[in-house]
Amino acid sequence: MSDSAMPFQLTILGSSSALPTSNRYPTAQVLNVRGRFFLIDCGEGTQTQMRKYKIGFSKINHIFISHLHGDHIFGLIGLISTFALLGRTNDMHVYAHSELQNFLVPQIKFLYPEDIPFRIVSHPLNFKKEQLIFEDKTASVYSFPLDHRIPTCGFRFEEKPVLPNLIPEKLKEYNIPIRYRQGIKEGSDFITYDGRIIPNSELTTNKHKARTFAFCSDTRINESYIESIKNVDLLYHEATFASDNQALAQTTYHSTGEDAARIAQKADVGKLIIGHFSARYKDHKTILAEAVRIFPNTEAISEGQVFNVG
Amino acid sequence: MSDSAMPFQLTILGSSSALPTSNRYPTAQVLNVRGRFFLIDCGEGTQTQMRKYKIGFSKINHIFISHLHGDHIFGLIGLISTFALLGRTNDMHVYAHSELQNFLVPQIKFLYPEDIPFRIVSHPLNFKKEQLIFEDKTASVYSFPLDHRIPTCGFRFEEKPVLPNLIPEKLKEYNIPIRYRQGIKEGSDFITYDGRIIPNSELTTNKHKARTFAFCSDTRINESYIESIKNVDLLYHEATFASDNQALAQTTYHSTGEDAARIAQKADVGKLIIGHFSARYKDHKTILAEAVRIFPNTEAISEGQVFNVG
Repeated sequence: MSDSAMPFQLTILGSSSALPTSNRYPTAQVLNVRGRFFLIDCGEGTQTQMRKYKIGFSKINHIFISHLHGDHIFGLIGLISTFALLGRTNDMHVYAHSELQNFLVPQIKFLYPEDIPFRIVSHPLNFKKEQLIFEDKTASVYSFPLDHRIPTCGFRFEEKPVLPNLIPEKLKEYNIPIRYRQGIKEGSDFITYDGRIIPNSELTTNKHKARTFAFCSDTRINESYIESIKNVDLLYHEATFASDNQALAQTTYHSTGEDAARIAQKADVGKLIIGHFSARYKDHKTILAEAVRIFPNTEAISEGQVFNVG
Repeated sequence: MSDSAMPFQLTILGSSSALPTSNRYPTAQVLNVRGRFFLIDCGEGTQTQMRKYKIGFSKINHIFISHLHGDHIFGLIGLISTFALLGRTNDMHVYAHSELQNFLVPQIKFLYPEDIPFRIVSHPLNFKKEQLIFEDKTASVYSFPLDHRIPTCGFRFEEKPVLPNLIPEKLKEYNIPIRYRQGIKEGSDFITYDGRIIPNSELTTNKHKARTFAFCSDTRINESYIESIKNVDLLYHEATFASDNQALAQTTYHSTGEDAARIAQKADVGKLIIGHFSARYKDHKTILAEAVRIFPNTEAISEGQVFNVG
């Protein structure tokens, strides 16, 4: 099945750390799971980046905020204002530290004394253990604690399996009654009137492998979250520094390129993408090079990049 | 005297109205008067735009906020955070409605419980009449009321005159004593020992014409502010709509291209630049064309554009 019919697609809106550079924006990413859009972090300028990379505002109903540092939240009030200006009425769900409300609500009250035309539904995160925070027929989303200066969560997005298609010729060949077909889609074999077992694999096609993405920013590396990102197809892990600043990474609760790669290796992920680069590096070459030495399937992210899984 | 030695230079950081487009940012401009930098409005993304167009963060000590709509203020908290991260200690002066503090201070307290390392000095604007709000040896800045939905000010920036240079040959020719020289720089003629009057114009060179810029956003056109922008060298006036939306411009307290041009004509300014274009227009051609018909020396602004005066 093609990507365009069943997208599992990550778009990078912002790849810098707290200090902006001339060509990087603070953290924001959008994951499209089969038409369901998840905004992850919302640094200053997120709405402009969404316009630039053609992410429709009306698609955004679920926003996941890893932690309450400015470079991950300053874009929220602009996005909310634009939603208000566009007359949005759909609920906007925000998964974040409960304290975020104390930051946002006064701003909204100041700007909109008569309130905005939609509800913001707050879903407080758990910073002690992994938790299922969203689920529908398309995807499940889990939060899990990271290791940063303030309470911070990573997120894992799991696509729900898609039922395979039945092969019309086989339905005909074995004269399979309609009442059995849903069961076969869900994995049953078929037993013919004369007792012959036709294995499911012969009757169905397009077996779909449910895809996964995990987001880890900002964090020091820590074995504690490896279980939560084990075997994901795509892992975003911050890599603020190169190893020449290993000590600084420790004291500021950030990771190096090497750190990110070791985590990817231990978690046995499919592909690693790194970002949140410190403005002190003219480019990301050093950080990327040290990651690739340890985990070859690593890429450095930049604004507008799109990663398709599967 | 060359621009580079004595700049009076406006850089456009953001040219859109409230809804961002894929290539326009909300309102922000920087005026450089002989090395003194004035930031005018501060929409979301201003700090990134400053990086992009090489406006040094440490140069920004004076910020002028026309009014408290989101698209003119959402960049402030990001800029303040970056200043804090960079360890700024210089005062930051903000000229705005006194209510701005009720928007900013809670955000700063939330993000920096132990406070930021610099002072924000608030200078409340007067929305009833023109007022001198800043003055040093380089420039004077005046605020004056505009006509928008909420209290809004325009700003006029006036360069201070520069004293001319004395012509060395003439000093020698007339044997002019040192004690008279400052007076001649300031405009006096010289009287020789035998009573001959040597006119100032013969003794000095590089007569510098003090330059002026006025900023008018957001506003309906109104005769009331014409006096405040009379004869400026460069006028920025918003032109959110084209004349096909004249009625909408009235009810939303905005201007059309034609409105801006009429104001420029009545105020007899040197050059008009227009911006704050509504996202409903695919490009600014219609708005610009109608302005140019009335006031030929009009340009439409876009991000990164630099206007040098004089």
